[in-house]
Amino acid sequence: MAAQKSAQKSDPRAPSSTRRSEKSRRAIYDAALALVAEVGYPRTTIEGIAARAGVGKQTIYRWWSSKAEVLMEAFLDLGEQSAQAMGHEPYAIPDTGDLAADLKAVLRATVDELKDPRFEAPSRALAAEGVVNEQLGREFVTKLLEPSLQLYVERLRTAQEAGDMRPDIDPRIALELFVSPLAQRWLQYTGPISYEYTDTLVDYALHGLTPRTR
Amino acid sequence: MAAQKSAQKSDPRAPSSTRRSEKSRRAIYDAALALVAEVGYPRTTIEGIAARAGVGKQTIYRWWSSKAEVLMEAFLDLGEQSAQAMGHEPYAIPDTGDLAADLKAVLRATVDELKDPRFEAPSRALAAEGVVNEQLGREFVTKLLEPSLQLYVERLRTAQEAGDMRPDIDPRIALELFVSPLAQRWLQYTGPISYEYTDTLVDYALHGLTPRTR
Repeated sequence: MAAQKSAQKSDPRAPSSTRRSEKSRRAIYDAALALVAEVGYPRTTIEGIAARAGVGKQTIYRWWSSKAEVLMEAFLDLGEQSAQAMGHEPYAIPDTGDLAADLKAVLRATVDELKDPRFEAPSRALAAEGVVNEQLGREFVTKLLEPSLQLYVERLRTAQEAGDMRPDIDPRIALELFVSPLAQRWLQYTGPISYEYTDTLVDYALHGLTPRTR
Repeated sequence: MAAQKSAQKSDPRAPSSTRRSEKSRRAIYDAALALVAEVGYPRTTIEGIAARAGVGKQTIYRWWSSKAEVLMEAFLDLGEQSAQAMGHEPYAIPDTGDLAADLKAVLRATVDELKDPRFEAPSRALAAEGVVNEQLGREFVTKLLEPSLQLYVERLRTAQEAGDMRPDIDPRIALELFVSPLAQRWLQYTGPISYEYTDTLVDYALHGLTPRTR
């Protein structure tokens, strides 16, 4: 379903009768993000999103089956917009051959995103619900978080192939050494977030991840 | 206030007219934790806690000024009970001279605590509220999380003095390399939690934290 919709979105020659109204789609995303930020996930409804977006609720039900689905796609779209506004590719990690520099660049972009007011309030509302609502939490991870984390896995595998990371390291765990501290500081207010901080995380983590002579 | 109450609690010779009824205190903690787990933080009230604990709400107001304060102390108490039940000191990190072993032991105990049903639901309710309620989130950190994290800071400083950790490392950031991944997996369901996992985190982190010859 998600793949089908992406295909429609990226193919301007799709029949106009089946092609989504870009304007309505954007209005629905904006309404969903604003509403969840204001009233929280439990009190966000398809009806409320429709009213705020100025569309009929059948318009929403035609394209999405639940408020969770609308929100997940609204976040994916927000990430794409945000990346484009900052002049880099959405959902990509650079590979310049310098692992530390590449990780630092991506984490600095994440710091910017976490501090973006458009992103912060709706993300917090969805994340908070995911903490107490296991089904939504797992859906959030599967659709939004894990695909981003897999980009790190791929970059770390390339680093392993290049001899920049020890071959016995599990990349899926390794990435958590720099991703999770940033996530926790943001989610739980356990400390300030800055470029200097994320650079430090990468340096600390890589000194344990890069092979060295003894 | 918290210090004063702790002093009362730990001094059995305090005048009985001012000493808290241990039975009421325990009933109030149990009620607060059960209620927040069932209805969430926003709908938990002093009145609801009092009714469930079978005490008058004035009994609660005599000892605590807010529901947040009751809950924070209920969690501190739960942590102490949990540690005692598992046969180790509450709020302490061992110092056997083997940094890796000490960190692994504490993180394994944390894994047990995170999987303890008495702990899980109320902790999730409070953590979720902290994500969207910055004031509560920061209070949660100041009273519950940061004091625990400072125990790691102290253990890592000792390790630095013993030459087991590089002197240029900031211990407050270093601890996040193994604490935050566990926290994120638990909070956000980003992956399974096990002793093997936390042992791996310590090994990965320490290879970057321990001094080595080049």
